[in-house]
Amino acid sequence: MTQPAAEHELLLRIEELVGPALFECEAVFERELSHPSPFVTDLLSHITRFRGKRLRPILVLLSALAAGEIRSAHTIIAAVVEMIHTATLVHDDVLDDAEIRRHVATVNTRWNVETSVLLGDFLFTHAFHLAASLDSTVACRLIGASTNRVCVGELTQIRQRGNFDLSEAEYFRIIDEKTAELCAVCGELGASYADDVSPGVPEALREYGRSLGMSFQIADDLLDLTGEETETGKTLGSDLEKQKLTLPLIHYLATCPDRQRDALVRSLQEDCGKSRESLNRQLRESDSLEYSRWKAEEFAQQARRYLETIKDSPARQLLEDLTYFAVRREF
Amino acid sequence: MTQPAAEHELLLRIEELVGPALFECEAVFERELSHPSPFVTDLLSHITRFRGKRLRPILVLLSALAAGEIRSAHTIIAAVVEMIHTATLVHDDVLDDAEIRRHVATVNTRWNVETSVLLGDFLFTHAFHLAASLDSTVACRLIGASTNRVCVGELTQIRQRGNFDLSEAEYFRIIDEKTAELCAVCGELGASYADDVSPGVPEALREYGRSLGMSFQIADDLLDLTGEETETGKTLGSDLEKQKLTLPLIHYLATCPDRQRDALVRSLQEDCGKSRESLNRQLRESDSLEYSRWKAEEFAQQARRYLETIKDSPARQLLEDLTYFAVRREF
Repeated sequence: MTQPAAEHELLLRIEELVGPALFECEAVFERELSHPSPFVTDLLSHITRFRGKRLRPILVLLSALAAGEIRSAHTIIAAVVEMIHTATLVHDDVLDDAEIRRHVATVNTRWNVETSVLLGDFLFTHAFHLAASLDSTVACRLIGASTNRVCVGELTQIRQRGNFDLSEAEYFRIIDEKTAELCAVCGELGASYADDVSPGVPEALREYGRSLGMSFQIADDLLDLTGEETETGKTLGSDLEKQKLTLPLIHYLATCPDRQRDALVRSLQEDCGKSRESLNRQLRESDSLEYSRWKAEEFAQQARRYLETIKDSPARQLLEDLTYFAVRREF
Repeated sequence: MTQPAAEHELLLRIEELVGPALFECEAVFERELSHPSPFVTDLLSHITRFRGKRLRPILVLLSALAAGEIRSAHTIIAAVVEMIHTATLVHDDVLDDAEIRRHVATVNTRWNVETSVLLGDFLFTHAFHLAASLDSTVACRLIGASTNRVCVGELTQIRQRGNFDLSEAEYFRIIDEKTAELCAVCGELGASYADDVSPGVPEALREYGRSLGMSFQIADDLLDLTGEETETGKTLGSDLEKQKLTLPLIHYLATCPDRQRDALVRSLQEDCGKSRESLNRQLRESDSLEYSRWKAEEFAQQARRYLETIKDSPARQLLEDLTYFAVRREF
């Protein structure tokens, strides 16, 4: 196994390998959404400012290359998954009352909640419309099934707010549905739309994507608890404020002495927002942060194991390097 | 032209002609959404209580019969459009802060706004997933394009809140997008998925659906201003409360003397909610309500003209009768 590539170098290598396809994906994305209404144009130009890592399009394109070749269908699929992801971000910001994302005001802050709801819908319907421009219903079906699961994950997460007994297994299931599922479909579709793909490759890349997504989400949840807003560029602490339990807290509540647990739950129930600093101190003194990082690392390792069945190539190497980035990133 | 059929008799005749297909459409709808999670089941059983007229599935099925035969694809398409319509209702209740719909608490009242947003998303993604079970991408593409327009209509409507200069043309465009568009696609898909359909029939039924939808929406907007909550079973007056201008008010503001207009705009800007009764009095004393009814009637006539090219049949007759119902209904 290689050492983690520096992020900047990683991005350069991705650019080198799939840069033109990513560029084409951006063009497809913008063409699909372009609209004569100045209001719609305004909204769309606003959200391009908080589109970020483009992890999902990159996953589609690298999976395509690792399995065979990038075809025009891939750039469409890449734009579709990015559009769905953007739709969920816009709606997530409503659910979380988030004020900033990628250093920019969220749609609900800049306009209002109603506009966020409708803009999210607009992105969803355009994503499916774009998927239907492919020559069969295969991608529509897979993406449809996948987004169905994403919604269930999000619904369950809302439902479990304030449940201080949420188990680790339930947490893993929620993040599998709300995050890992879409990454899984990126790997699968990237591979299955490549020419002459070897048997087993779409399945391996699907499971790679799923494990990578799990690892990414755990790291994201760690950042929400312990990160710095100046670095991440988004409102942090909203999990805690919304009484949304994530791995470090779940682990801490399951392992700390009963009396400490009761006191912590009471203080969180009273005012989750204010508890972030004192909770952080408690977490740092325990091994719960370390445990969570280790879990993220475990999923990253699992992702690398799924890659072992894929023949070596620069694309496969980058997929492997992404698993290191998933765990160690600070934004 | 026949006289308007009594609503009860109309429903019985619809039942007689497409009852089994409607029943199958319900089964498809429920099968697509069924989920092991008790929370999801709870949400879904709640929203079935406010599903109502089933106008859109009926449009698909009657169009299919008027153009040829009902096939299994039609029951799928009928379920898809009903699911999309339900998704927009759930999100509309968020936008309107509506508390009741069909005599039942809205999702945002019974649960919360977050749950409404996600349940709407869940319905959208399932609708597209279900559409992808058809054997080609034709329906996915048409439904995708149609829902894109629906979202733009809704976005424009939000944007135009509080604009007391909204023109009649802009209003017609908004309701064409947010309501008539989906009715148009019902007529078009109903016809084009029938066997051996004659040339021009899908287009005629699409434009029939569009005109019917326009007529329906104008009648709906009239009800929101002048209807009784006990009869309609939903929160009324929300258009006014949200400073959402509809035809009667647009016409009144455009035709009343300047001084009266200025006073009215000031009072609406101050507190739209409280103005409903006094505004109603002013509207009743003017010809703006009559004008709006006449416009709804004009679209209904236009819908009937599109039917003239379709060969006579019990289904065509029912489509014609629906145009009378659209204008005269009180719920």
